[in-house]
Amino acid sequence: MTDTLDIGVLGYRFMGKAHANALARLPMFFPDAPAVNRRVLIGRDEAALADATEQLGFDGYSTDWETAIDEVDAFYNLGPNAIHREPSIAALDADTAVLCEKPLARTLDDAAAMRDAAARSDAVAGCAFNYRFVPAIQYAKALIDDGELGEIRQVRGRYLQDWLLDPDAPWSWRLSEEVAGSGALGDLGAHTIDLIRFLVGERAGPITRLSGQLQTFVDERPDPDGQPGETREVTVDDAFTAQLAFENGAVGTLEASRFAAGHKNDHAVEIHGSEGSLAFSLERLNELEVLGPDDRGYQTVLVTDESDPYVDHWWPPGHVLGWEHTFVHENYEFLSAVAGDGSFRPSFEDAYRVQRVLDAVERSHDAGEWVSLD
Amino acid sequence: MTDTLDIGVLGYRFMGKAHANALARLPMFFPDAPAVNRRVLIGRDEAALADATEQLGFDGYSTDWETAIDEVDAFYNLGPNAIHREPSIAALDADTAVLCEKPLARTLDDAAAMRDAAARSDAVAGCAFNYRFVPAIQYAKALIDDGELGEIRQVRGRYLQDWLLDPDAPWSWRLSEEVAGSGALGDLGAHTIDLIRFLVGERAGPITRLSGQLQTFVDERPDPDGQPGETREVTVDDAFTAQLAFENGAVGTLEASRFAAGHKNDHAVEIHGSEGSLAFSLERLNELEVLGPDDRGYQTVLVTDESDPYVDHWWPPGHVLGWEHTFVHENYEFLSAVAGDGSFRPSFEDAYRVQRVLDAVERSHDAGEWVSLD
Amino acid sequence: MTDTLDIGVLGYRFMGKAHANALARLPMFFPDAPAVNRRVLIGRDEAALADATEQLGFDGYSTDWETAIDEVDAFYNLGPNAIHREPSIAALDADTAVLCEKPLARTLDDAAAMRDAAARSDAVAGCAFNYRFVPAIQYAKALIDDGELGEIRQVRGRYLQDWLLDPDAPWSWRLSEEVAGSGALGDLGAHTIDLIRFLVGERAGPITRLSGQLQTFVDERPDPDGQPGETREVTVDDAFTAQLAFENGAVGTLEASRFAAGHKNDHAVEIHGSEGSLAFSLERLNELEVLGPDDRGYQTVLVTDESDPYVDHWWPPGHVLGWEHTFVHENYEFLSAVAGDGSFRPSFEDAYRVQRVLDAVERSHDAGEWVSLD
Amino acid sequence: MTDTLDIGVLGYRFMGKAHANALARLPMFFPDAPAVNRRVLIGRDEAALADATEQLGFDGYSTDWETAIDEVDAFYNLGPNAIHREPSIAALDADTAVLCEKPLARTLDDAAAMRDAAARSDAVAGCAFNYRFVPAIQYAKALIDDGELGEIRQVRGRYLQDWLLDPDAPWSWRLSEEVAGSGALGDLGAHTIDLIRFLVGERAGPITRLSGQLQTFVDERPDPDGQPGETREVTVDDAFTAQLAFENGAVGTLEASRFAAGHKNDHAVEIHGSEGSLAFSLERLNELEVLGPDDRGYQTVLVTDESDPYVDHWWPPGHVLGWEHTFVHENYEFLSAVAGDGSFRPSFEDAYRVQRVLDAVERSHDAGEWVSLD
Repeated sequence: MTDTLDIGVLGYRFMGKAHANALARLPMFFPDAPAVNRRVLIGRDEAALADATEQLGFDGYSTDWETAIDEVDAFYNLGPNAIHREPSIAALDADTAVLCEKPLARTLDDAAAMRDAAARSDAVAGCAFNYRFVPAIQYAKALIDDGELGEIRQVRGRYLQDWLLDPDAPWSWRLSEEVAGSGALGDLGAHTIDLIRFLVGERAGPITRLSGQLQTFVDERPDPDGQPGETREVTVDDAFTAQLAFENGAVGTLEASRFAAGHKNDHAVEIHGSEGSLAFSLERLNELEVLGPDDRGYQTVLVTDESDPYVDHWWPPGHVLGWEHTFVHENYEFLSAVAGDGSFRPSFEDAYRVQRVLDAVERSHDAGEWVSLD
Repeated sequence: MTDTLDIGVLGYRFMGKAHANALARLPMFFPDAPAVNRRVLIGRDEAALADATEQLGFDGYSTDWETAIDEVDAFYNLGPNAIHREPSIAALDADTAVLCEKPLARTLDDAAAMRDAAARSDAVAGCAFNYRFVPAIQYAKALIDDGELGEIRQVRGRYLQDWLLDPDAPWSWRLSEEVAGSGALGDLGAHTIDLIRFLVGERAGPITRLSGQLQTFVDERPDPDGQPGETREVTVDDAFTAQLAFENGAVGTLEASRFAAGHKNDHAVEIHGSEGSLAFSLERLNELEVLGPDDRGYQTVLVTDESDPYVDHWWPPGHVLGWEHTFVHENYEFLSAVAGDGSFRPSFEDAYRVQRVLDAVERSHDAGEWVSLD
Repeated sequence: MTDTLDIGVLGYRFMGKAHANALARLPMFFPDAPAVNRRVLIGRDEAALADATEQLGFDGYSTDWETAIDEVDAFYNLGPNAIHREPSIAALDADTAVLCEKPLARTLDDAAAMRDAAARSDAVAGCAFNYRFVPAIQYAKALIDDGELGEIRQVRGRYLQDWLLDPDAPWSWRLSEEVAGSGALGDLGAHTIDLIRFLVGERAGPITRLSGQLQTFVDERPDPDGQPGETREVTVDDAFTAQLAFENGAVGTLEASRFAAGHKNDHAVEIHGSEGSLAFSLERLNELEVLGPDDRGYQTVLVTDESDPYVDHWWPPGHVLGWEHTFVHENYEFLSAVAGDGSFRPSFEDAYRVQRVLDAVERSHDAGEWVSLD
Repeated sequence: MTDTLDIGVLGYRFMGKAHANALARLPMFFPDAPAVNRRVLIGRDEAALADATEQLGFDGYSTDWETAIDEVDAFYNLGPNAIHREPSIAALDADTAVLCEKPLARTLDDAAAMRDAAARSDAVAGCAFNYRFVPAIQYAKALIDDGELGEIRQVRGRYLQDWLLDPDAPWSWRLSEEVAGSGALGDLGAHTIDLIRFLVGERAGPITRLSGQLQTFVDERPDPDGQPGETREVTVDDAFTAQLAFENGAVGTLEASRFAAGHKNDHAVEIHGSEGSLAFSLERLNELEVLGPDDRGYQTVLVTDESDPYVDHWWPPGHVLGWEHTFVHENYEFLSAVAGDGSFRPSFEDAYRVQRVLDAVERSHDAGEWVSLD
């Protein structure tokens, strides 16, 4: 395919910048990626949108996503979770490819509808679980698939942040059940669930049962749009825990928190198999701790060799990558799928399966008992 | 009290050696400890017992605990869990002090009977949860009690070993429900539960509810006493997981495994509070990771200063202690209590409360639902 | 200043890509940076140059630097060390700003001539010691300048790579004294010397005396341009060591190697003062180990807060940066100086002073004695 | 030999306690060690000596070493460096075995005389460089001897403490050239030099040339025996640095300090070979960082397996040892040599060769040039 892909992006803040940057960097580092045109930036606040359009290098902007999705080859849905469903389905129904930020939806119902739309559309539908695209994670996946860890026995995932530690940190949409669906669970836990599915799904099979717990430590917070002293209710979890059982008999624990003092973005996964173990933390994303069958201790592997996934596109060994590079890899894969054979993962189907786990955690919490995922 | 305490010790293998060593080292390092006499070593295999008696420095040995407990001031019950109950109660009823290895008992019923015996006896009754006596743990407890971490929010405990990873590792009594009660849960998890109670019990209150999961990865193992090819059934868990809820709203996760490749004795506790965090692992037992209210990152504190708990008895700063020193501290405290005012913790009451948690994990596993600990 | 700066870049491989990327990223992340135009890419191999021109986003290319330097506002000299001198001086004499890769020159004489050219020119002359622009390093510098470490006592620098470990790794210009000047010393040690000057120069004063040692482990290597079996002589050091004495009485050690098995790009600096210590390694470039006056252990600080140097231009806390971001910061500062008040450091004067240290290491090695740097 | 060895120990403070403890622990953990009798403790201050005699478990004490050395089978010389020479030589001349604390002597002349006395005596003469007896170090030595690291290229040793950081820390004999000979150099550096000789001596050959630097940061300190405000001069180094060249072409650096804020007892050695690397720090003495030929990163090996040196005498895997255990191993080897075939290393010859390096560092410092050790 030689034509340029026109991209429309809904959302111009954190995620908008992350994806715009990824798009901008492809030509220099992934010359075989499809050419892209940052065509239209979509939002509601026209003044902010105009500024962002210039800074992020888009041709123009729109406040009308319904029109925009018809004008582009790929639609990036980076808005709050509550608006994932409608525009994504509309785009897919118009055979416009969609890359939707995670979690896929606010509710399992929404996710199911989106999954169905993807199934009936010819367009590519991807969910932006970017941590699959960390070189160290792809290297870990290859080790596991090659049997280096043997049979998977135990999995431990956690995603720790601390930005809500201060009880006076302001309310935002991320704290609203109505907009976000859930809190640490959907925002952070979704990442971990996708990572675990990606890493051990083939070896351990799906999560078949789980038990979950949600907790909110601070129930209301200052309303940034209100009068001084006014507060809004926090209607989502500040932290969650879960226990997992996998099809092959493996067991696991999950955890996320926005109250873990000292942890800024500590997304960690640890896996034990019958032959070895591995451990990863996003705060040291260039490293993988690996214990193979012949090792006496974990090797601290700097995953920056030319032979490591994606690394040959960047710099020589030891010249570490950052968080944002995961978006470049993700966009490269997504756009290559759009321009090519149409296969991209994590798909909406993958993301729907993650959403089922999120939903099961909530149901288990409410019921006080284990929930089956059959 | 100036008299020498006569000590009788049931058990002469791993734990017997650990406690005999502790007793032997007290005079040089804790000159204010009561004088002790290693009077009698108790067991069943007379030949092995005779050898151990000499090597561990006891006056003599006995195969009859019933007689022995009357001849000593303190009785150390270091046998398999199934024989904790009867001799310990007999000793306490004879007003002989008892130090019993952990977990307190094979079942909650046994533990309750032992707790009751302790309550009606004038003798000191202690349970040997030795990790309370790691200087770094006592330092951690002081920090928490002083409010350095603020209100406790999250607790994470895990105890990882890998000695059963090989499916041909032989069967032993530790794999028998009848003798041990449980597997990783009681052997390892009991330590973690005691540690968590010790560290956050005052701030977070007791564990009020929990959900648990047990798993056995290898169901039968070679019988070391059988014919070649003969196996015995494994009737306990190889690994467990749990979720905890504390009285003050804190949440937590627990885990233990004998299948965690690469982890030999990795007993780790991590605690997050509203003001700070801390982390500890037994494999680096001289260190405590501490994040206080004014810190930007965890401090790696080598807890070997003269001002640190017990350290002034040993060596100058930076001259690290080992695992066995926890037994010296524990014996020092226990024997001081026996010779003095009679107060020692962890008491049988403490250990009974740990046993309730163990029991609740099993009940939760069986029921597939949360269990209340009110 | 509203005009766009035209940039000419000599060199299109590793460093060419690193700087081209930096230039490309400025508008999105440093909107207050001067606008730049990647005008001309300069080299000798026309075919390779044409490809690079397209990939790196330049308007065109040239094989004639003499003409090119007159057509641009800033000239980036990223060629091998031996060609730093002539074009840089020519550019400065034409009042074209120069950013020259490190080390400044092949020899001290060359460096002196370049420094003199910078002194007599009105144009900005900078040397691309990019590690000054790591946020953690700038944070470290602020701590030292604020007196957090007290009086500087000891400094330890090392730069470890292992790409020459294989004796059959091919010969390249970096192994030629004629082209590179020196080996690990100039390529790696120059970075460390600049970093140490930057960090402790104000507190500890200059290095006043040193003793150095050079070593070449493999004397000849396969000639990639020769017949099979043909080799070329390695005429530079594979590793060096040095001892330093500073004006204020502080002492230090320096080391670099291309033979340190397992170390890909381990550029580490450790500093001890009368009140505290700090440690940094490039392989974990988002982290700084800091021990302040009130700390019991080093804090592992993730230097990714909004208040940390340059971080507010990028991503939220905990979203780590990579190696290449140092070039963006460096280019931002350099171009701002070109467009603005003309002050940029590290200047040619700074780089000349680094070169004096390199030269002194070689002289000390030859003489077998300490060398004064007065 | 079946008889009990009578031991006389000169010195009853830090080192006296460390060795007395080692002697006391042998029977329980090293049953094949010769039986020993703590016969006589030797010193000058009779009151302190009497107390120590009781606490450390000696039969009696003496203020007259000349008599004592004739009454014992082995004489432990644990006094300040200045009194190593005379009693050690007298003991050896009386064919009494000697274990002398490190460094061997105050001066090279003294060391030579002691080495000569050992050579002419039939008695065993050992120097107590205890860090050879860390299991991880012996494991490292075996790896190096087995060629796991290939040809040795680079060695890095450092011993960092911080107990003199406070300028008001009191004067002691360790700060007196007359009593101690040197400061950080002889007290700490001697350990590192012995360790490096032990680890790489066979592969890399001896140190053939070196360059050294001594520095004293605080020239006088409060005299603990003087009037308030009175000070005594510090006549030794607070820190030293050195560069090394080995016979096989390997190069190295050495460093020690009593001013390294935050480092309590950080004795670290790092070695790079043509096939691999390893790293050790005393503050984590149960661990060895190992990078073998097939490894991508350093393995963090917990050297506590049954198959590891000395470990089978102690506890199961993962039950870590402490600093003091090195003394038990050392005493086991020394006493086995005394009772057996008479071979013990580090010998006085070994210690003399360490002293030559110490002396060379001082000579190099004075001369400002490299010193040959041929």
